[in-house]
Amino acid sequence: MDGTQMPAARAAFTARYGAGAEPKAGPWNDTIALLLSHRSVRGFTSDSLPDGTLETLVAAAQSAATSSNLQTWSVVSVNDPEVRRELAVIAGNQKHIEQCPIFLVFLADTSRNGRLAADADTELVGLPYLESFLVASIDAALAAQNAVVAAESLGLSNVYIGALRNNVTRVAELLGLPPGVAPVFGLCVGHALPGREGEVKPRLPQEAVLHHETYDANDAGHRAAYDPRLAEFSRRNEMLGDTWTQRVIARLGTMKALHGRDRLKDALVALGFPLR
Amino acid sequence: MDGTQMPAARAAFTARYGAGAEPKAGPWNDTIALLLSHRSVRGFTSDSLPDGTLETLVAAAQSAATSSNLQTWSVVSVNDPEVRRELAVIAGNQKHIEQCPIFLVFLADTSRNGRLAADADTELVGLPYLESFLVASIDAALAAQNAVVAAESLGLSNVYIGALRNNVTRVAELLGLPPGVAPVFGLCVGHALPGREGEVKPRLPQEAVLHHETYDANDAGHRAAYDPRLAEFSRRNEMLGDTWTQRVIARLGTMKALHGRDRLKDALVALGFPLR
Repeated sequence: MDGTQMPAARAAFTARYGAGAEPKAGPWNDTIALLLSHRSVRGFTSDSLPDGTLETLVAAAQSAATSSNLQTWSVVSVNDPEVRRELAVIAGNQKHIEQCPIFLVFLADTSRNGRLAADADTELVGLPYLESFLVASIDAALAAQNAVVAAESLGLSNVYIGALRNNVTRVAELLGLPPGVAPVFGLCVGHALPGREGEVKPRLPQEAVLHHETYDANDAGHRAAYDPRLAEFSRRNEMLGDTWTQRVIARLGTMKALHGRDRLKDALVALGFPLR
Repeated sequence: MDGTQMPAARAAFTARYGAGAEPKAGPWNDTIALLLSHRSVRGFTSDSLPDGTLETLVAAAQSAATSSNLQTWSVVSVNDPEVRRELAVIAGNQKHIEQCPIFLVFLADTSRNGRLAADADTELVGLPYLESFLVASIDAALAAQNAVVAAESLGLSNVYIGALRNNVTRVAELLGLPPGVAPVFGLCVGHALPGREGEVKPRLPQEAVLHHETYDANDAGHRAAYDPRLAEFSRRNEMLGDTWTQRVIARLGTMKALHGRDRLKDALVALGFPLR
């Protein structure tokens, strides 16, 4: 890190971790600055994007690593307003799904491998296992994150839509997915509405997440430091002002808050993932 | 895309998809060029890295989106040579696990949320579901991919080690993981050995992966175009010269090729993920 970059690096670490909780300074460049500046955005202008933007994002996505080059993911670009509307409802009325110029549904896809084997008159005995669904979901996530970084490098904002998993059965119907393909999450991409760019959200102290040699479960102190930091962020951003502890309990403490995702396993089995 | 960038963009698309299979040209910049240039590298120099490199990579990782800010992932940096050696054996004798200056094991981690709830004298009824394991695995993947992009921006190479899943039980023992934490994959980071930087691996035609409005399963033509392209890549890189079809069948066509990952589900349950 040269002298001119030091203040930028320090500011980025302070924004991400809070004053006094910055990790050790290390190498720095514009790409790392871009990664550190990520914010999820939930309000988009309807401005259309330059020709070829979607294809460039997907090229970035396909450039991510994929387990054994199996390429067990796919993505559907959805523009149909009726379908967007229903997806927004499934996701708990997330209106930005209807607004954003690019809406993508990332898919775990073992069907492409399956078709290849069927055409070769053989069977992929490894496909029915949980491992294959996990590989496919991880492949989709690595790909999507590359698309996110590419989008942000172009000045575009985004937000993942995990809430499509509230009803993967209906999402699969809407997108005409064959057996062996399941929605993993959605992704909104576009220009942030003015004032909706948001603020970098503080994360847990790095010491709570990064372990050395073995796992250290003594993290109550890190949590105690983080709780008020997230509450302050929340207050500044006109949310409830809850601590991290309160938010995690709200999200996972009741069956209602799962919004149907307790049925995900059965739904995936029905979509052609035996999860053995 | 301005005129000076066009040849670079075209060359990057040709390397990734093959001559004649380039997607539609779109916006372009150095970050996108970096993403498109990814190669997995399996040979590293033992050069140590600048102070703070690990912390910077993890800061990039923590800056990725995380579902509902639950932050259900952790990472262990492993340096102990004995542990590295055993991890390399578990992964099918991948010697680069012993060579690389940074070796990380990314973890699906619901235990941190669990400790928080225990300290608050409550229970997270949402945790035992497959959904929570999936969220944690996706969180880990998004985080890791940010670390990969940060590393590559610093001129470092990397390779994911999915083969840690050959025996998550033993990896969990070696890293002292508490219940509710499981290894998802490893990651080697370092400087590529001269001559081991590799060549950009061609991927499936974009039309096989990117769908519009609904899923299009008619991809036999795309596969036929891709098969010889991957075989040529393989021959150039002193591998077998197999087509994609042959490689997928070799990877998933026998139980032996799963290297124990057919037991992943039972192992995860034993590690404290009920996967309901």
